[in-house]
Amino acid sequence: MKVVVLCSGGLDSVTALHAAARSHEILAVLSAHYGARHNDREIPFAARHAAALGLPHRIVSLAFVAECFTSALLPSGAPVPEGHYEDQSMRQTVVPFRNALLLSVATGLAESIGAEAVVIAAHGGDHAIYPDCREAFMRAMDEAMRLGTYPGIRLLRPFIDLDKAGIVRRAAALGVDLGQTWSCYRGQALHCGACGTCIERREAFQLAGVPDPTPYQHQPPLPPRPPPHSGE
Amino acid sequence: MKVVVLCSGGLDSVTALHAAARSHEILAVLSAHYGARHNDREIPFAARHAAALGLPHRIVSLAFVAECFTSALLPSGAPVPEGHYEDQSMRQTVVPFRNALLLSVATGLAESIGAEAVVIAAHGGDHAIYPDCREAFMRAMDEAMRLGTYPGIRLLRPFIDLDKAGIVRRAAALGVDLGQTWSCYRGQALHCGACGTCIERREAFQLAGVPDPTPYQHQPPLPPRPPPHSGE
Repeated sequence: MKVVVLCSGGLDSVTALHAAARSHEILAVLSAHYGARHNDREIPFAARHAAALGLPHRIVSLAFVAECFTSALLPSGAPVPEGHYEDQSMRQTVVPFRNALLLSVATGLAESIGAEAVVIAAHGGDHAIYPDCREAFMRAMDEAMRLGTYPGIRLLRPFIDLDKAGIVRRAAALGVDLGQTWSCYRGQALHCGACGTCIERREAFQLAGVPDPTPYQHQPPLPPRPPPHSGE
Repeated sequence: MKVVVLCSGGLDSVTALHAAARSHEILAVLSAHYGARHNDREIPFAARHAAALGLPHRIVSLAFVAECFTSALLPSGAPVPEGHYEDQSMRQTVVPFRNALLLSVATGLAESIGAEAVVIAAHGGDHAIYPDCREAFMRAMDEAMRLGTYPGIRLLRPFIDLDKAGIVRRAAALGVDLGQTWSCYRGQALHCGACGTCIERREAFQLAGVPDPTPYQHQPPLPPRPPPHSGE
């Protein structure tokens, strides 16, 4: 299938890119810079993997997000909170309707260049605190993409049955160097090791039983995992 | 209801803006510049009406659309075709998935500033040649907006039961100066009078029985209206 792959340069989407390269014809790798603190850290990794695979890489600017939207991920926002994603404090890191925006850009690009589908690395461990990660949203968006384009562009979510540890295992099996990916929302020189996404990254390697190649600024003990929440 | 109003500066959305100002609390008027030939002509009209109503106006840049997407509306595209919208040639003027993109931006802004809904001037005469104008797409997008945001942002389409002539009548009733709106896809100093959107504009005034205040470059006789197409 001819596809556009959304790739931020993070662990999930870089793995999705390498997986897609084995099963699809990738017409473009798409990254978006929306003015978040960590975009400058992660997008170069997307560029590196696209280049290694010999694929065209498009970086689009969504600068208006930082100008008009509110989120702790944006320079205008509160500091990035620490702890588990499930904590209410992590709601601050939501960029409103980000996935819809990214999928709309990817779908317009896909239709423009003759692709039939868009690949997003959404996974089963994605957080119910983010409304635009939930299954029901993704199904509605898939419908909107199919109905709102001439070729009926589809949404592919190859990792939907995996959690993040499963993605780390998949990356190891594919030979993807996860040291060349970025997760930390703080966007400093090194991964901080303590924000929600660093905790999740460290845990995923631990649960997967795969050595973590990431240099962290600090490695505070991993907090106990909160009990799984009860659905959406 | 607290709303964000999408307003391009065209006849439909300027009328929708004035109608919304009577029935809603408008938190922001939103225009997008996506590099189309006519954006520079239409957005100043949106700004003028927002200012006249004392409302904050946000203009976001979607420059990547002109860089990455294909359409006759974009500088990279073929010339804007003449004739009726229903003609197959007008398919060239589709900007892929534009409405989804605009609604995603508006929804993220709405959630960020505490609005509950987004107003779009989609109307019953919108063209089935544009997939992202169709009823089924709009319903799916409404679902995606509701499910993908914390407050469950809604999509309002107050003109969905009107055609363009009906909007011209509504504007006349509201006292909106439609001379201060822009339709022509060619984006020259004056409305060309002959492209699909100029033909539609001229016809709408004629059908509404409202004097057309628009200065046109040419006013070729209006072509006969094609028979209504058979649904979606």
